[in-house]
Amino acid sequence: MEFQVVKVKEDILQENSKRAEELRKFLKEKGIYFINVMASPGAGKTTLLTNLINRLKSEFKIGVMEADIDGDVDAERISKNTGVRSIQIHTSGACHLTAQMTHDAINNFDVDGLDLLFLENVGNLVCPAEFDTGSNINMMLLSVPEGDDKPLKYPLMFEVSKIAVITKIETADIFDFDFERCRKNILKRNKDAKIFEVSALKDEGVDILAEHVRKLVLEGR
Amino acid sequence: MEFQVVKVKEDILQENSKRAEELRKFLKEKGIYFINVMASPGAGKTTLLTNLINRLKSEFKIGVMEADIDGDVDAERISKNTGVRSIQIHTSGACHLTAQMTHDAINNFDVDGLDLLFLENVGNLVCPAEFDTGSNINMMLLSVPEGDDKPLKYPLMFEVSKIAVITKIETADIFDFDFERCRKNILKRNKDAKIFEVSALKDEGVDILAEHVRKLVLEGR
Repeated sequence: MEFQVVKVKEDILQENSKRAEELRKFLKEKGIYFINVMASPGAGKTTLLTNLINRLKSEFKIGVMEADIDGDVDAERISKNTGVRSIQIHTSGACHLTAQMTHDAINNFDVDGLDLLFLENVGNLVCPAEFDTGSNINMMLLSVPEGDDKPLKYPLMFEVSKIAVITKIETADIFDFDFERCRKNILKRNKDAKIFEVSALKDEGVDILAEHVRKLVLEGR
Repeated sequence: MEFQVVKVKEDILQENSKRAEELRKFLKEKGIYFINVMASPGAGKTTLLTNLINRLKSEFKIGVMEADIDGDVDAERISKNTGVRSIQIHTSGACHLTAQMTHDAINNFDVDGLDLLFLENVGNLVCPAEFDTGSNINMMLLSVPEGDDKPLKYPLMFEVSKIAVITKIETADIFDFDFERCRKNILKRNKDAKIFEVSALKDEGVDILAEHVRKLVLEGR
């Protein structure tokens, strides 16, 4: 049984990598930069995306895919608060998105003319990190209430993310969060990670992150 | 491919249920009550367990199994702060514990003489809910910073948990958390759920939860 499981997982990951490469090529040809956003439940993905999009939408045509196990809350919310087009992907219980699921969603979305496409992955600090979605870059969020030790406990998520955004920084005092320790823990997993600190509530730090994303889109499309 | 994956998953879950039943029977014969604790990363599992154990350890002999993908932080911390015996389980990247993994850990732990055994599962609001660990009851934690809408987005976790503990309640004002709405959302998933509200920081609510656990152990062993 054990061998069978490992073998099937290898097959799945191999198949997934192939699909992801195809998808990346497809989007590159259309001039679309694709960012996969990952985090624990409640880390502030939808809020950060809303704030980022509102800073970038005058320059780029943006689309958002919202993945959730159930519920239509996020897609509605993000469209209402930004005016950009969004669709909801239901994963039917699955804990992550595969490249195939992303591909199917994109087919239903009509991405022609977009400059920038965001995927808000399922809230999960483990499984989404295993599956290449076909994105150009992974952006992960760690919220202050989760604690500065999380890179030690969830290594893969931090290893695969070139952008790490520490969110809810206005609560650092309450949760005894040490930014220096957190940065060290993140860089231990990925020495090239770009680390940003934001507070959606106080509207701090989002400009700097938006400028970084802007450069990525201009260089990467 | 898709069929193969579904079939393998069915096999895995069926095999897991069988193992879980065996484990439950084994622990029942030894008079050990087994609680599986699940939550998102950083929801406060280790802290709550520490506080619960310190209230129950004079009456019961308690053991703790700490599951993590990597790192030995929690097992050390809980032993140091409670004096009870704990072991660390490394899942080698896996996003959940199976009954077999729990079984193997128990074999390495020597549970003879214990009254109460806790398992702190991997921080993940999705996958651990799919796998029966062989526990007598599932206790899940939802921290206030995660938001009161989480039962809508992560249905299975709330469906399989008879105890739902809302943690970090002292931060409700900051995060605009609505307890009434949260309770409704939890009960929508599981109408028999017992809901508790605790603040580890202010040491509020833990006594009531400890009394509930005490009764479960006395009735359930």
